[in-house]
Amino acid sequence: MFKLRSLVTALALIGSMSVANAWEKLPTQAPEPADNPSTPEKIELGKMLYHDPRLSSTGTVSCASCHNTMLGGEDNRPNSMGVNGQTGGRSAPTVWNSAFNKVQFWDGRAATLEEQAAGPVTNPIEMGMKSWDDVTARLKGIPGYQAAFKDVYGENSISKENATKAIAAYERTLITPNSPYDKFVGGDKSALTAQQIRGMEKVAELGCGSCHSGAAFNGAGTFQKFPMNADGFLEAKYHFTKDKGVAEVSKKSEDEHFFKVPTLRNIALTAPYFHNGSVATLEDAVKIMAKVQLNKELSKDETADIVAFLNGLTGEFPKQTMPTLPLTSGKTTN
Amino acid sequence: MFKLRSLVTALALIGSMSVANAWEKLPTQAPEPADNPSTPEKIELGKMLYHDPRLSSTGTVSCASCHNTMLGGEDNRPNSMGVNGQTGGRSAPTVWNSAFNKVQFWDGRAATLEEQAAGPVTNPIEMGMKSWDDVTARLKGIPGYQAAFKDVYGENSISKENATKAIAAYERTLITPNSPYDKFVGGDKSALTAQQIRGMEKVAELGCGSCHSGAAFNGAGTFQKFPMNADGFLEAKYHFTKDKGVAEVSKKSEDEHFFKVPTLRNIALTAPYFHNGSVATLEDAVKIMAKVQLNKELSKDETADIVAFLNGLTGEFPKQTMPTLPLTSGKTTN
Repeated sequence: MFKLRSLVTALALIGSMSVANAWEKLPTQAPEPADNPSTPEKIELGKMLYHDPRLSSTGTVSCASCHNTMLGGEDNRPNSMGVNGQTGGRSAPTVWNSAFNKVQFWDGRAATLEEQAAGPVTNPIEMGMKSWDDVTARLKGIPGYQAAFKDVYGENSISKENATKAIAAYERTLITPNSPYDKFVGGDKSALTAQQIRGMEKVAELGCGSCHSGAAFNGAGTFQKFPMNADGFLEAKYHFTKDKGVAEVSKKSEDEHFFKVPTLRNIALTAPYFHNGSVATLEDAVKIMAKVQLNKELSKDETADIVAFLNGLTGEFPKQTMPTLPLTSGKTTN
Repeated sequence: MFKLRSLVTALALIGSMSVANAWEKLPTQAPEPADNPSTPEKIELGKMLYHDPRLSSTGTVSCASCHNTMLGGEDNRPNSMGVNGQTGGRSAPTVWNSAFNKVQFWDGRAATLEEQAAGPVTNPIEMGMKSWDDVTARLKGIPGYQAAFKDVYGENSISKENATKAIAAYERTLITPNSPYDKFVGGDKSALTAQQIRGMEKVAELGCGSCHSGAAFNGAGTFQKFPMNADGFLEAKYHFTKDKGVAEVSKKSEDEHFFKVPTLRNIALTAPYFHNGSVATLEDAVKIMAKVQLNKELSKDETADIVAFLNGLTGEFPKQTMPTLPLTSGKTTN
């Protein structure tokens, strides 16, 4: 189905510029699960928790440390750095527009934002808390959090479930609409340059959209094998296959090297690239993708055109206020 | 002079409640040095730099990591944690109202906010950059910073001096007015509770103001010896004298154990206490101060009254917007 759609798009684009509406604009609202409707109070609580380093064992790492909304939604590092300077093997995906992912984490091991939010907190090399019981005990010791949870969920409601629901509700507000691409798709033909339009056509022609489909260019949660084609030179340089992706979780050989298709939204701001953050520039990332996924060698001009188009996927980042994190009067929390 | 003033205050307070105006309200504007006038653009640039973890070698530690404006202006930890999980021996002072300090750092080794801002960036256990040349080279690689510096200082103006001036200008906006104490001093007699007023009188009577003087209760930049009186039990527990304070910098024996007098503003939010962050609660901090500085044993009620008063020094934290940090399109910065 994806193949067909991308072919149609490609043909349409080549034929006429009136096809722009075959491409999708980013929705300005994220879908909410029935059991976690958003409210302003819940979003504000989630923003507090998201930015609170006391959710880590050392009190130094918050969700925002690796998924920094001020910095393109991630940390600009190859691999993120958790408590006590520890690093893992993966590059932090951007939190912006993560509400449009159908699965979370590079290996898709969390089905929802709520489930994802629970993970890093107790990961020993990320936020390092021993258990969620320790997290909720710490939160219960902070009167401001007691009050904030009460406002959202009622009396004595500090729990893992309610904390992660609030974080997810906040994350659902992190949407970057009105990229040049969105404006173009919305009818403003001057929003993309001639080079960007060439890049857009090339993306369609190559079939990038068979995986990077949909409004968020992220395959709507489907997994894809990466790399598809072995390349000794690239492997020696970037070690793509060291990480087995979905198989690291499922332990099934058929899942080896399958990863969640990452969004292309704001990709110009989220270097370095790939699951292991091994590629420093978007230009190299584009060339590598063509080579290992599609077995195509792109010319310098083709690469530049696609990079120009991808720069057109940078959206508007809504201004956020900083949360004031509640403190326990006269007492250390950690 | 301080002694006299505090005695006058104490006597006046004991005699009559009309003395509240002997105490000073926090100014709502910080003094600016002649060579670094604030402008909105400079403040915004400073806010960006202050929150940018790319000013550290690992890209994980910003000024805000240890002096977190969302978290009382510091990190709520005994000792701060710099790059690669390293820790020093001192507790991060709050950045809120630091514009009213006449010297900076616990040992006062920086005379100004500008000078202070330069230090941690190249401290190997704090932000770990090898040199400011490395910092400015990194900033020069980010087009958004080139543009922001140009707006403030003119063409090609990225430099250590201009970066630290901008950070200082931002820090001068971090003022927390309208604490219950300020309202009380301004004439609203209901702003402090009866217990807080008793605590205020006790503070005056004890002579706390001989060091914690002025609108920021910080001795206007004077140093003071801590601890004044040796106490074997407390020393064994808290190791106060391990750090030689000003003498660590000056190497002079007469400076041993002298420290900048810290502000009492928002002290209820900045646990743990003292230069080494060894004391977890404000109650203990108050009792210890009375003991080792004034050789007084406070009763439980006296301590509670003073703690109540100190809670009245928590001001209003102005809402801040999050800066959007400029990114280099399609390229990792670090």
